[in-house]
Amino acid sequence: MTTEQYKNRADLIAALADLMEDYARAIDRDELELWPGFFEEQCTYKVTSRDNVAAGYPIGLIYADSRAMLQDRVKSLREANIYEDQCYRHILGRPHVVSREADTVRTETSFLVMRIMQDGSTSIFASGSYHDVLRITPERISFIERIVVNDSSRVDTLMALPL
Amino acid sequence: MTTEQYKNRADLIAALADLMEDYARAIDRDELELWPGFFEEQCTYKVTSRDNVAAGYPIGLIYADSRAMLQDRVKSLREANIYEDQCYRHILGRPHVVSREADTVRTETSFLVMRIMQDGSTSIFASGSYHDVLRITPERISFIERIVVNDSSRVDTLMALPL
Amino acid sequence: MTTEQYKNRADLIAALADLMEDYARAIDRDELELWPGFFEEQCTYKVTSRDNVAAGYPIGLIYADSRAMLQDRVKSLREANIYEDQCYRHILGRPHVVSREADTVRTETSFLVMRIMQDGSTSIFASGSYHDVLRITPERISFIERIVVNDSSRVDTLMALPL
Repeated sequence: MTTEQYKNRADLIAALADLMEDYARAIDRDELELWPGFFEEQCTYKVTSRDNVAAGYPIGLIYADSRAMLQDRVKSLREANIYEDQCYRHILGRPHVVSREADTVRTETSFLVMRIMQDGSTSIFASGSYHDVLRITPERISFIERIVVNDSSRVDTLMALPL
Repeated sequence: MTTEQYKNRADLIAALADLMEDYARAIDRDELELWPGFFEEQCTYKVTSRDNVAAGYPIGLIYADSRAMLQDRVKSLREANIYEDQCYRHILGRPHVVSREADTVRTETSFLVMRIMQDGSTSIFASGSYHDVLRITPERISFIERIVVNDSSRVDTLMALPL
Repeated sequence: MTTEQYKNRADLIAALADLMEDYARAIDRDELELWPGFFEEQCTYKVTSRDNVAAGYPIGLIYADSRAMLQDRVKSLREANIYEDQCYRHILGRPHVVSREADTVRTETSFLVMRIMQDGSTSIFASGSYHDVLRITPERISFIERIVVNDSSRVDTLMALPL
């Protein structure tokens, strides 16, 4: 029931890297309904910026504290149909294990997200670092907390898709 | 003679990630002559777009169904000398194993390709996902099929280098 | 005292990938004081371009041959305060092992660096390949040599931060 199942650091990082990629893949493939399932029922999801974090501001652009709120967000996105106009492509760095205690692990992972509009134009949408707290059980790894720390404070506050 | 040689999922993904990186490296280093060697003799190489795939169009921008055709393509590129005017830089995501059966594995891998022109200007050339079918033998892993699915339908149809 | 401690290729590559990510992380998090510590006391750090390497020019834009020189560089950067105006985000490829002998390994690793200015604008700052010579001991892996080979010869020669 602990992280002991990952005999060594490399095995743990491989499992974490798979999870990060699966999360990004769900969004990039427009399988948004899968997104809330990566989180615990009681969870934190925040999108903020490097400057906000440095200044100690507690709440970012987008905030949810339960899986139900994430499900609501997906529902709104589907109703607004904004998702049809664009898609994302995440490219991720290798997870860095910040700390590890019993069944909980803190990680940071660099990301780069490209946005591709319906007309085919591609641009850098966001870069930054995921600051995560993860629960590891024999069955799966899930997000207790994901704080998306954007490098830029100019990331579109009307953004349609989760990061 | 099967994928059994990769005792666990992490070993398999590591071997696949090495292969994907080697493939990209051959192109980024302008070692195009190595490129056809990554494929089986009877193989499929297609470049298409996300929209084309969604709409069910069978054939993409570029199509080859044998290693010989890929070799011909390299020959043409060398004769046209287009490759001197630009180079690519691939940055790849972690391979996602879609399915696995005996010595065959299906994977999808995110990619981002930068194009650097002779004058030094750098731009995002393409982003997307490789949809691959791979044969695994004790000696090597090779492409039975590589479908390059670009996120944008605006990728230059006159593009010089393979993706 | 040799690379024997990494029983297989995948373990070695995982350890190298951790190192590469740690190096990039120190710079991206503005922990520049950690940067010289990744190198041996006698070391080589060069920033050059693909064209320079192809033409056989020995010295690149920036050159250091000891850890002390790298420490001096950090000191200058801190005094100039340039680092406050921008930050970087590195996204790295998987290390490719070129050769391996006793406790020394040669690798090449693709990189992409985004630069984020204080006003929030993000652009591709550099892409290229790290050409590294690394010493592996039971305690750690350190750089004997890091040659940053930029794809473009237009990378800003007045650049503030290390690559």
